[in-house]
Amino acid sequence: MTSTLSQILRPASYVYGTWHANPDGQTLVDAVYGRPVAVISSEGVDFAQALAYGRGVGGPAIRRLTFHARARALKALGTYLLERKEDYYALNLLTGATRRDGWVDIEGGIGTLLSYASMARRELPDERFLPDGKVERLGKGGTFVARHLLVPREGVAVQINAYNFPVWGMLEKLAPAFIAGMPSLVKPAPQTAYLTERVVRDIIASGLLPEGSLQLVTGEPGDLLDHLEEQDLVAFTGSAATAQKLKVHPTIVARNVGFNTEADSLNASVLGLTVRPGDPEFALFVREVAREMTGKAGQKCTAIRRAIVPRGRVEEVVAALRQELSKVTLGDPARDDVRMGALVSTEQRERVQRTLDALKAETSVVIGGEARDLLGGSRERGAFLDPTLLLCESPLTARGPHELEAFGPVATLLPYGTLEEAAQLARMGRGSLAGSIVTHDRAEATELVLGMASTHGRLLVLNRENAGENTGHGSPLPQLKHGGPGRAGGGEELGGLAGVRHHMNKVAVQADPTTLAAITREYVPGAEVREDVVHPFRKSFDEIGVGDSLLTHRRTVTEADIVNFAGLTGDHFYAHVDEIGAREGLFGKRVAHGYFLISAAAGQFVSPAPGPVLANYGLENLRFVEPVGIGDTIRTRLTCKRKIRKDLRPGETRPTGVVEWHAEITNQRDELVATYDILTLVERARDGADA
Amino acid sequence: MTSTLSQILRPASYVYGTWHANPDGQTLVDAVYGRPVAVISSEGVDFAQALAYGRGVGGPAIRRLTFHARARALKALGTYLLERKEDYYALNLLTGATRRDGWVDIEGGIGTLLSYASMARRELPDERFLPDGKVERLGKGGTFVARHLLVPREGVAVQINAYNFPVWGMLEKLAPAFIAGMPSLVKPAPQTAYLTERVVRDIIASGLLPEGSLQLVTGEPGDLLDHLEEQDLVAFTGSAATAQKLKVHPTIVARNVGFNTEADSLNASVLGLTVRPGDPEFALFVREVAREMTGKAGQKCTAIRRAIVPRGRVEEVVAALRQELSKVTLGDPARDDVRMGALVSTEQRERVQRTLDALKAETSVVIGGEARDLLGGSRERGAFLDPTLLLCESPLTARGPHELEAFGPVATLLPYGTLEEAAQLARMGRGSLAGSIVTHDRAEATELVLGMASTHGRLLVLNRENAGENTGHGSPLPQLKHGGPGRAGGGEELGGLAGVRHHMNKVAVQADPTTLAAITREYVPGAEVREDVVHPFRKSFDEIGVGDSLLTHRRTVTEADIVNFAGLTGDHFYAHVDEIGAREGLFGKRVAHGYFLISAAAGQFVSPAPGPVLANYGLENLRFVEPVGIGDTIRTRLTCKRKIRKDLRPGETRPTGVVEWHAEITNQRDELVATYDILTLVERARDGADA
Repeated sequence: MTSTLSQILRPASYVYGTWHANPDGQTLVDAVYGRPVAVISSEGVDFAQALAYGRGVGGPAIRRLTFHARARALKALGTYLLERKEDYYALNLLTGATRRDGWVDIEGGIGTLLSYASMARRELPDERFLPDGKVERLGKGGTFVARHLLVPREGVAVQINAYNFPVWGMLEKLAPAFIAGMPSLVKPAPQTAYLTERVVRDIIASGLLPEGSLQLVTGEPGDLLDHLEEQDLVAFTGSAATAQKLKVHPTIVARNVGFNTEADSLNASVLGLTVRPGDPEFALFVREVAREMTGKAGQKCTAIRRAIVPRGRVEEVVAALRQELSKVTLGDPARDDVRMGALVSTEQRERVQRTLDALKAETSVVIGGEARDLLGGSRERGAFLDPTLLLCESPLTARGPHELEAFGPVATLLPYGTLEEAAQLARMGRGSLAGSIVTHDRAEATELVLGMASTHGRLLVLNRENAGENTGHGSPLPQLKHGGPGRAGGGEELGGLAGVRHHMNKVAVQADPTTLAAITREYVPGAEVREDVVHPFRKSFDEIGVGDSLLTHRRTVTEADIVNFAGLTGDHFYAHVDEIGAREGLFGKRVAHGYFLISAAAGQFVSPAPGPVLANYGLENLRFVEPVGIGDTIRTRLTCKRKIRKDLRPGETRPTGVVEWHAEITNQRDELVATYDILTLVERARDGADA
Repeated sequence: MTSTLSQILRPASYVYGTWHANPDGQTLVDAVYGRPVAVISSEGVDFAQALAYGRGVGGPAIRRLTFHARARALKALGTYLLERKEDYYALNLLTGATRRDGWVDIEGGIGTLLSYASMARRELPDERFLPDGKVERLGKGGTFVARHLLVPREGVAVQINAYNFPVWGMLEKLAPAFIAGMPSLVKPAPQTAYLTERVVRDIIASGLLPEGSLQLVTGEPGDLLDHLEEQDLVAFTGSAATAQKLKVHPTIVARNVGFNTEADSLNASVLGLTVRPGDPEFALFVREVAREMTGKAGQKCTAIRRAIVPRGRVEEVVAALRQELSKVTLGDPARDDVRMGALVSTEQRERVQRTLDALKAETSVVIGGEARDLLGGSRERGAFLDPTLLLCESPLTARGPHELEAFGPVATLLPYGTLEEAAQLARMGRGSLAGSIVTHDRAEATELVLGMASTHGRLLVLNRENAGENTGHGSPLPQLKHGGPGRAGGGEELGGLAGVRHHMNKVAVQADPTTLAAITREYVPGAEVREDVVHPFRKSFDEIGVGDSLLTHRRTVTEADIVNFAGLTGDHFYAHVDEIGAREGLFGKRVAHGYFLISAAAGQFVSPAPGPVLANYGLENLRFVEPVGIGDTIRTRLTCKRKIRKDLRPGETRPTGVVEWHAEITNQRDELVATYDILTLVERARDGADA
């Protein structure tokens, strides 16, 4: 592998179904030797047409797919891209990043895609919209009910990405947008746009996403924002200053275009007051700070910028960090012996240098200052910068360390006295994407987490227990919120389904139960049901319809039932078997076991012979509403509530689906005794649809 | 009741713990006779101090209370205000509103308060923060887990309200903010601020909310916005134009202050294609349109502005609306024979008149135009306006009816051909708070709901089924989202807990299971547990601790168990009792009933004698993970997962709480067989804390 190229790249834009390249444009140089790498320009791109194409072609094409079909497309795409990853690693070196840095970007990005694919199949229905939350009963008579639905926004998700994660940055925005049903228009930062473009070329060539799902603008965004409309969204990652400029764009304001910001923030890591040198947590803290300072040469919006340490531990922390940072070798990231590469550009290095100089007004340099030997790369033309640790003696009154972000291998030590002070220092960043707390003391962890929670998007408690498995201070995960309040932009990405929801409109739908069931395709209590001579358990997944219902025969609960059930299960709770205790208890008499009722209900509704229903694998929302005494007579109504088709997994031969049944047990006075939902696995007709 | 006053009101501001009044200021006149009503001014209010007071005094005071304590305070406040409602109705008349209009504002507002109080006690823990969603397992070894927490924003919720709902507008914002833990600073619109102030006087006098929870600015907002900070929020209700101005305020942008907008929108009601004159839905549609045009004299941000009707039904709809609107009597709202009062001011009437004139470029007047007789009130000095219905013959090409909002008793009829066209017309409003669809045909309702869902915040399907119970097109409900995309502002209020969540910061917390359990006060699978010689069912609610755990004795499941269980329950499903069928089935052998396993587990963990655990009233998240065959040996671990203290209801004598237990059944190979959560009702120590 090498960090040189045989010819200059000309990354193009992909808009309205065609590749659009320009012979001239801005020349980019590589970060390591300063040699020309690429020429980019978006000149001639018609941005209004691109947005109209996304809305008119891409959106409808994605929205025709169900959530599961979208998930299958993303899964196939992830696999496809993984097979081509070495092409991306080659370009990654030109950005100044090591292979390890590139792993987070490239495989981390593809992993996010795959993670969304599996989350969508696990947690979303195989539908085009998402019923949200419970059915609300709005009238006593039960004729007026409501439920929220989430439907895709019918615009384009414009994704403006930062230079530091050209692959992950694109894919972590694309995946939730696509699952939600929105097409993406990606605008990568120019510095590393050639790597983004390389991946987009493969995505388009794969044909795995519907045409119009993904457009790419390589170069300047022109008048793109002027053409935004109400149903569009902008997701921006970058500096707080740029975010603020974009947010007040007249069209974005006038059209109320959704705007999500992930801005760099002054993230803090706190070393607990209880941690002593020699404790595993002390070493973990030092390693984490060093890793965050030097990983991606410190160019991460989540990196630790402020290391908050007990005042009495400052010297020991500095000594340990000096030792740790001395192992960081600098140079050409293509070399195996190099631990840290270059910043993205010499302009960026100068910007960091200027911020560093400004920070020195309130801090002193404790590590760094003298240039290390380079292992390859050019000191003059490459964008190398040595790790620098600052110390701020009066962090509660200083402003710079909480306001000025040196977006490179730079951090500031902030000494503290009490835990309250430590949390206050963390909060002085006025909003951060990520924070960490290194301690093995749970009370300390609790106090710090609750003290920092209002100003952070993610908090990591790091200690010996999770040392082996934790993913580190700086790593956003697809399952967890990425975003922070205030300075961090006030946005939210990822976080599992939350990231998908941001691309959808929530609408409350009010109707009568039967109409609401028809709209949401889920049974609503009180809606009309269909009874059939065929037992619902005799129908295949495809034959069962939402609202199919069975009202069972009756059964009188006898004293013998209760006694036998107690004997068989060993459950001799006084409310069932102790006449004296039960009389004084909650119900004033002996009552049947709740578990007997749901077992007897199964005895009423189960169709015993082998058939399409393979198993009852779970149960939800069980509530025992009224006690059942000796002599009471119960019966059960079982109604198909909803259906979720399942994909065949490798090795599986029976196509199946999940059928959720709503069960209601009533007594001889038609009072509700128990209500619950039963999850069953049901065979589909073997139609080869999974081929 | 009368719409005159014995003296001019001088509504004051309530800031930093004191009432601040001014002798001079803007003079407001009543809407009916144009007589002076009140003088208001906020001169001399120090807005920076008010915000600092909210952050420093109000916020901490509310955050010291748990969700349940906050709910109790709101409940008491609601009851207190209801006793004083006649004072509010008296002032309501001066705003031009009838008693019926006032009911929505006054009792609707107090009802929203009470609704949030009961929702919080039902759905939130008795804690100061809210664990959100499930525990995420982040590593295979189980040492690294995460969960989201919601914590209150530590700023002030600045609530800028519109003139049309001076009571509801305040309370529907205050309630979710207070439950979340945020203090409110209320800025009512000047026109009706005297009514808001009257209610705030009572709230402050009641002493039911902690000092600093509620501040009021009566008059101009001065430099209020300049002093906002990152943790503050602005919730604005009013015109789209004002919202856009406020949103780009430099401080709001620079500090990333949360901003929520509810803007007036051009809401539509669609009469279904299948509805014929004579159908109940035809009459329902006509009544709803007339009611929305004339209720509050049409001054509702949710009112129907566009009535979308089949082209062939226009004449019949006009005739029926003419008939319906002819019954609307205009005049002094204090009179019992008056159905519609005045607009809020003559300035407002002139604004509506100007919009009406502009609308006439693309529409014709079909109802209205000639002034009706007034039943009291002054034509010259009062702000009366007759209901006006317009007809737009070419609504797909017209712009005015979709863009110009006459905020008064004005609506436009838009004829359509196909359902697709009807949905398109509705979407042409570019974002609405509410929409309605009047039809008894479910397919039609489904098509229209899905066609309109992306541009609406709430959709009502109205028909004969819910005619008696539905709450109408224009009524926001505390359980349902209030807000809409695009033109409607893109905001979200109410919607149950969603409205509370907007006032909180979500933070993902990553830790080892034991630390995460300590922080969230809920058991996390894999966390350390505490075993005790005392059986957990022998402990009262107060003695049980999260993490208290019991590992039961073992039990070997025999063929006799399966046979007896089948006989007793009647569940002879082949997988349990049919050797041949079971061999070919999912498990390849006969297995125990799932219900037997959870029943036998209860037999293992239950402590039979009377004790603090009163009942097992429900079960959640049950999953059968591994089948249990004949000869397998099971045992169960029961661990206290979380505790929710319950308030005594009137008439209840035993103080109790809910204890949720996590149960895991394992087999002889320590494989998980079943996992679920059990809900029990447990007695508290009778300490009189509920007195």
